[in-house]
Amino acid sequence: MKHLLATEGLAYDDALAILDTAEEMAAVSSREVKKLPTLRGRTVVNLFYEDSTRTRVSFEAAAKRLSADVVNFSAKGSSVSKGESLKDTVQTLDAMGADAIVIRHSASGSAAQLAASDWSEAAVVNAGDGAHEHPTQALLDALTLRRGWYSGHSATGSPRGTDLAGMKVLIVGDIVHSRVARSNVWLLRTLGAEVHFAAPATLLPYGVVSWPVIVHYSLDEALEAAPDAVMMLRVQAERMGGVFFPTAAEYTRRWGLTDERLARTQAMILHPGPMNRGVEISAAAADSPQAKILDQVAHGVAVRMAVLHLLLTGEH
Amino acid sequence: MKHLLATEGLAYDDALAILDTAEEMAAVSSREVKKLPTLRGRTVVNLFYEDSTRTRVSFEAAAKRLSADVVNFSAKGSSVSKGESLKDTVQTLDAMGADAIVIRHSASGSAAQLAASDWSEAAVVNAGDGAHEHPTQALLDALTLRRGWYSGHSATGSPRGTDLAGMKVLIVGDIVHSRVARSNVWLLRTLGAEVHFAAPATLLPYGVVSWPVIVHYSLDEALEAAPDAVMMLRVQAERMGGVFFPTAAEYTRRWGLTDERLARTQAMILHPGPMNRGVEISAAAADSPQAKILDQVAHGVAVRMAVLHLLLTGEH
Amino acid sequence: MKHLLATEGLAYDDALAILDTAEEMAAVSSREVKKLPTLRGRTVVNLFYEDSTRTRVSFEAAAKRLSADVVNFSAKGSSVSKGESLKDTVQTLDAMGADAIVIRHSASGSAAQLAASDWSEAAVVNAGDGAHEHPTQALLDALTLRRGWYSGHSATGSPRGTDLAGMKVLIVGDIVHSRVARSNVWLLRTLGAEVHFAAPATLLPYGVVSWPVIVHYSLDEALEAAPDAVMMLRVQAERMGGVFFPTAAEYTRRWGLTDERLARTQAMILHPGPMNRGVEISAAAADSPQAKILDQVAHGVAVRMAVLHLLLTGEH
Repeated sequence: MKHLLATEGLAYDDALAILDTAEEMAAVSSREVKKLPTLRGRTVVNLFYEDSTRTRVSFEAAAKRLSADVVNFSAKGSSVSKGESLKDTVQTLDAMGADAIVIRHSASGSAAQLAASDWSEAAVVNAGDGAHEHPTQALLDALTLRRGWYSGHSATGSPRGTDLAGMKVLIVGDIVHSRVARSNVWLLRTLGAEVHFAAPATLLPYGVVSWPVIVHYSLDEALEAAPDAVMMLRVQAERMGGVFFPTAAEYTRRWGLTDERLARTQAMILHPGPMNRGVEISAAAADSPQAKILDQVAHGVAVRMAVLHLLLTGEH
Repeated sequence: MKHLLATEGLAYDDALAILDTAEEMAAVSSREVKKLPTLRGRTVVNLFYEDSTRTRVSFEAAAKRLSADVVNFSAKGSSVSKGESLKDTVQTLDAMGADAIVIRHSASGSAAQLAASDWSEAAVVNAGDGAHEHPTQALLDALTLRRGWYSGHSATGSPRGTDLAGMKVLIVGDIVHSRVARSNVWLLRTLGAEVHFAAPATLLPYGVVSWPVIVHYSLDEALEAAPDAVMMLRVQAERMGGVFFPTAAEYTRRWGLTDERLARTQAMILHPGPMNRGVEISAAAADSPQAKILDQVAHGVAVRMAVLHLLLTGEH
Repeated sequence: MKHLLATEGLAYDDALAILDTAEEMAAVSSREVKKLPTLRGRTVVNLFYEDSTRTRVSFEAAAKRLSADVVNFSAKGSSVSKGESLKDTVQTLDAMGADAIVIRHSASGSAAQLAASDWSEAAVVNAGDGAHEHPTQALLDALTLRRGWYSGHSATGSPRGTDLAGMKVLIVGDIVHSRVARSNVWLLRTLGAEVHFAAPATLLPYGVVSWPVIVHYSLDEALEAAPDAVMMLRVQAERMGGVFFPTAAEYTRRWGLTDERLARTQAMILHPGPMNRGVEISAAAADSPQAKILDQVAHGVAVRMAVLHLLLTGEH
């Protein structure tokens, strides 16, 4: 692997290599001295064209735990806001010695465009490109799901080397706008899971019938299929205006993981955050033992450490 | 000590432990290589809901001198501005591996709320919560006062182990809105100092008569009581509008440390910064040998190193 | 050298010491572990009163490669925006232990004022003061020019110890507003180069006839003088409004390095960035083998490492 651009097309072996390395990194992160020297003297640039403090902080913590130097380059107040092209910005960062460029951009395909170009020698990590992909999010979800799936079947040992064969994962909500959902579908399928969607028709992607998923037009019906994990997507406030669904209360009633629905499932509960408590997920669901939402955050640092380590050292 | 939330209730021994450790840290900061390895591999998060570059930079320098990794998380442009709750933000930072959370928030009690919760295992340092407390500011003031008080009484040796018994400290200005004044009152009393206030009645807290302080309604009268130190508080521009006092010039005439008043006191002069030169303090007073304002800044880094060190290592 | 404020008045030997040290630093930056321990435990503050992500990132990367701690202090959201004076800000940073202050300010002479004051013991590096000077930019340009000039004359060896005697350098465009042009003129003359200007009369400085340069009022005529290097300056969008020249297209036709003009010169092409492709420089010119624009960026990090190293260690 030279870059991490997408989970679509990510080979099974590469996905497992990332997850297994992330297990080791998670062990580092739970030590008192959370530090490895592997990327000492390397420079990781966070090139963020969209604000995303959570994702940026997670990548920053990951790089620093590997002893890399981190430079944050946000588009605001930079030459980008003076109209500089992505090409010129990237060539500049490359000339400054960037070894890895973590890019978040509103344009689908921007990370792939960068990687396909000759603008830079740096490893490229897609930290979200439009509504296209967000592969490290799917990988941290997979790490979380694998731990739960493994411990549900084995009393002891480590999930290393295992996949999600046979697991049923239900993704609920605003799928059409979600790069998280897209990245999850491809990776979950690669790892052998069965993917279900539950969403209002207005929030499903055009052509979803040809996707390798099972679509439900009712959350209650979807829960009857006994998913092993339920992934609740964030409802963007700007969508709650009558175009996609009538009101937030109506959304919650039909598509929210309410207390009443929580009582009807034993599934692991995931959410990419930040949550709208009381809208797509109730406070009780968010704080229940089934919820793995904070594990996801912790696994985010471990997965990003694994990705930076594998891309920059080539070691496994 | 697990957290540093306030000086109200801070035990005498703990206060002295911080001040004595800060003396050692000040020695480190005056070396050419200003670095200790004690917090290597630990992560300190600056969680700032209000802008405060000075305080943030001081904590950042302190953490870096102890070899910690520092992550700055400001509320602007983050999921906080998308409405994420303090609880979810803190749980996220905790899951990312924060060992200490330095929090600045406009709500009084926010740091204590965080520390009382089970949202995080991290040590919590209050870097200013509304008009309530700003304990590291009071500690750096105390370090500055102690040095002056000690050197005024002893020709040699170190102030370690000593307190402020018998010292008269006068706090002047906008006390009602000042977390600095509140934190100072409690700490100064714990350390044995006598605290005086001088302020217009509109800028004194309701119920001040029950506070353990001596109140003066005239700065000139307060100076006649021969304070050993005078702490001038910043006048916020937004208060200068006729509600609290008529004009800036009127404030200066009655409550400013003018050249004329400077000539009438030998007291140490302190100011938490940034100063309004010509309003609450004249340029001559700010730059006089009596002024310890830059010592306060330097002591700020030392005190914050001491606090982070003590909270995260438990060593003294 | 205690500070780097300007190239006007920079001694020949000091200029060569910086360039020769930068050659060594460039070698470090091309290693896999891009790190020297020379500034470990030192604190470099980037004090930026104007946004300039490129310059700030370059200084930040330089300081981190020398193992310094870096603190970014931007004027926005800081006490500066509450009206704090430069003096008080700098004294505060000094008291926090800044060893070097890298300052970018809109006022010409601000860096020199800081260095002449007794506000701080820190080394001062001018990172751009109004339309006055930007010395590290001129030094990185000189490093780039020297490599090209040397390799054009010698088959082997290193350019260390050599200067630009006999080289013809043409600077094109908005010279009157450009600190880059000013800093280049003084340094290029010190290093023995011949400096040419080509610009519309409205973009030449008043009194340019007394400068040690040859002025052309036509780019085509200037190119006929066979320059060894052409430095294209950025056209600020805010100048394109009819006051200085009629339209961007008109500017390009008369003063741009177009494909047609590119065919008529073998000169090295430099640009301080960010470029307006299609305005002052064509895409083909920017991407041609003659262009050294990305070398300039890489040399920027090397030159800033050299400057920080020399100022803070006194070693050569």
